[in-house]
Amino acid sequence: MIHSRVHVSDLREHVGRTVSVCGWVNALRLQRTMQFVIMRDHTGLAQVTHKRDDGPLEAQLEALTPESAVRITGRVVDAAQVKLGGLEIVPEAVEVLNPAATPLPIDEHTALEQRMDWRFLDVRRRPATQLMFAVQTTLEQGMREYAYAQGATEMHTPKLMGTAAESGAEVFQLGYFGRSAYLAQSPQLFKQMAIAAGIDKVFEIGPVFRAEPSFTSRHATEFTGVDVELAWIDGVEDVMTFEEQMLAHAIAKVADAHGEAIAEHFTVEVTVPTTPFPRITMAEAQEILRKGGWDPVGDKQDLDPEGERSISTHIKEATGHEFVFITHYPIGIRPFYHMRAADDPSVTLSFDLLWKGLEVTTGAQREHRYDVLLKQAAEKGMSPEPMQDYLNAFRYGCPPHGGLGMGLGRVLMVMLGLDSIREASFLFRGPNRLTP
Amino acid sequence: MIHSRVHVSDLREHVGRTVSVCGWVNALRLQRTMQFVIMRDHTGLAQVTHKRDDGPLEAQLEALTPESAVRITGRVVDAAQVKLGGLEIVPEAVEVLNPAATPLPIDEHTALEQRMDWRFLDVRRRPATQLMFAVQTTLEQGMREYAYAQGATEMHTPKLMGTAAESGAEVFQLGYFGRSAYLAQSPQLFKQMAIAAGIDKVFEIGPVFRAEPSFTSRHATEFTGVDVELAWIDGVEDVMTFEEQMLAHAIAKVADAHGEAIAEHFTVEVTVPTTPFPRITMAEAQEILRKGGWDPVGDKQDLDPEGERSISTHIKEATGHEFVFITHYPIGIRPFYHMRAADDPSVTLSFDLLWKGLEVTTGAQREHRYDVLLKQAAEKGMSPEPMQDYLNAFRYGCPPHGGLGMGLGRVLMVMLGLDSIREASFLFRGPNRLTP
Repeated sequence: MIHSRVHVSDLREHVGRTVSVCGWVNALRLQRTMQFVIMRDHTGLAQVTHKRDDGPLEAQLEALTPESAVRITGRVVDAAQVKLGGLEIVPEAVEVLNPAATPLPIDEHTALEQRMDWRFLDVRRRPATQLMFAVQTTLEQGMREYAYAQGATEMHTPKLMGTAAESGAEVFQLGYFGRSAYLAQSPQLFKQMAIAAGIDKVFEIGPVFRAEPSFTSRHATEFTGVDVELAWIDGVEDVMTFEEQMLAHAIAKVADAHGEAIAEHFTVEVTVPTTPFPRITMAEAQEILRKGGWDPVGDKQDLDPEGERSISTHIKEATGHEFVFITHYPIGIRPFYHMRAADDPSVTLSFDLLWKGLEVTTGAQREHRYDVLLKQAAEKGMSPEPMQDYLNAFRYGCPPHGGLGMGLGRVLMVMLGLDSIREASFLFRGPNRLTP
Repeated sequence: MIHSRVHVSDLREHVGRTVSVCGWVNALRLQRTMQFVIMRDHTGLAQVTHKRDDGPLEAQLEALTPESAVRITGRVVDAAQVKLGGLEIVPEAVEVLNPAATPLPIDEHTALEQRMDWRFLDVRRRPATQLMFAVQTTLEQGMREYAYAQGATEMHTPKLMGTAAESGAEVFQLGYFGRSAYLAQSPQLFKQMAIAAGIDKVFEIGPVFRAEPSFTSRHATEFTGVDVELAWIDGVEDVMTFEEQMLAHAIAKVADAHGEAIAEHFTVEVTVPTTPFPRITMAEAQEILRKGGWDPVGDKQDLDPEGERSISTHIKEATGHEFVFITHYPIGIRPFYHMRAADDPSVTLSFDLLWKGLEVTTGAQREHRYDVLLKQAAEKGMSPEPMQDYLNAFRYGCPPHGGLGMGLGRVLMVMLGLDSIREASFLFRGPNRLTP
């Protein structure tokens, strides 16, 4: 007789009945008179209790190995002494659907790099990591909900480009039917093209590729980007408002769905941010930091990681807020397509968003005036020829617009208090890591 | 005085008031005593009516060019004689935010290839194409709604791979810090790894890359794939059920939100499919087709495009249904990782889904037993070494599973009756097309 699958978290509803549970052997305790199997599925742990009887079932249970995939059919019975839900399964049949070899290649003491070699086992055995992917799902859905409610259109821009338009050095190059193609390091040029195509608000979640030999805890050669581009804005403030509202909505959704579980597994509290987020100009931020002894030489244009952490700490102390927009970046450290302030052409109408000291977003109003764009590209020493397809989008009625690019892994990293972007990815890619 | 932006579709609510409308010059009619500007934003068309008065406004309107991005501020007045909503805007100020050069590089008679060179203008000027992206947004959201309700997790699997595991010939190769990497031609291996990682149901929408020199109306070198993988299935039927339910839900959502507009712009009706979809084995399909004279030589293993169209027509006549699952593909035309039928090892537990004669999905139960998988790979002449990372996922308790890969562009193409996948993409990529 076939019994349909019941999730471990639903066993309580089936006390007194025979059910099948599908999952993995979490642990085995084979005692003199009793055999205990702790089963795990994606909803929880359950105890299977068998009294030795010299029968075939005893032999089957004895032969189980940790992490084998099994279907166990048995009666669910009340058992107040059992810590796992106060119930146990008395097995009637055990089916090994895929045995796990022994020993397992990793255990709970294995270092991160080796765990990444066996990421599927690492993820499967860590309830916190399972939770992280559930949080990712909810977070994305929350961002989409907000974006759709604002009238955004989900676009899928190409990752294959004919030229390394934005900046050649950090771009992967590939063979393409006898010529070269390049991997998009962001949807930037294409989402602007979508704005020129009359899409009012562009939303995209997809992979972005960076050929940077960076080995920090926050860089990857491939990561998931959340991209937004908004047409007909009155200024960069519209972009910041969109982002803070989108994040507040999505974080509230995560807190609601997973707040307790996150507190349990990651020992962090998810605080739903109030809006508006604090804003501070780069000049103000640097003034504050320098008073605290940052950059004693006084030649830094950008914030370094230490500066990001310090200014976030300052804002947290001053306002209680975990987020801060740093605005008005100097033109020297922003790309040519960022619009410059009319009243101070040495700064751009741009921002970074920091969350608990980590940059999670870069955004800006874009320069949509063709002649100004050409001039700014020339000032950066860029030749217009390789990017003519991009520039053409500004010659036939491109509206004012601005947008943002957010790193999904960084948001998860900060939200869950992870040490490294490696742990916020399913299968991390870095200069030294292309597998599994 | 600043007036906030009003969408054209909302003008009726503002009759008697002064508003700003932002959009493009759709058409100009400059008559002897009157100037008419037809404005377009993403919500519709509106008429701007100005009586010549030798003033500065007259000169500004006279200098407008088609497709320029403009903000026009004026009074909304009732005008029963105006076809566009029975109202017009009497302008008070015109601001050209980005002028369009003349002449425009394409018009409504331009052939497809040249329109693709200027895709942003092509999309902007075609309300039907604008609608297509709205339909795409709704369709994806419908699929996600269904998948999430079933407990699916949104995963982002890497597009960069260390080896060309699945089949070397069709894979793009790139330089990667002194060695080679490859672009994933599907998330296949990685979504199976997610199943081995204990993710119960995997959902992903993302780019897939095919280095095939195919020049048909339905192939692209980069397209958006919808991927699903389900753990602990009882058989491939579970995968087909998931797909038909997901599609029925998503298509119903599209029909509800856009059915009327689709009928108007594409002259096709969106029929919400009933479930279950018809199913037919490959052997049955070929028998039916051969009776009709298909494949007179009698050596075809797979359906060719003509066969796909014919069998869909047959099913439509027999059952009234637009969809059909073709099941039990012979092992010779399926990859090594498809599970074979226990009662007939010459066929796989796999399917294609055809919609109105076009293949939109391939799916299968996967072989999760390590020894069987090794044997099937060897039979296909594949060496296990380059795919050891993949094979390892089956050595430590990988549950039974199956899934599907759907081409989003193909679904849009069939739904809207488009002639080519080129028109179902924002920026198409093919062997001869890497720009814009």
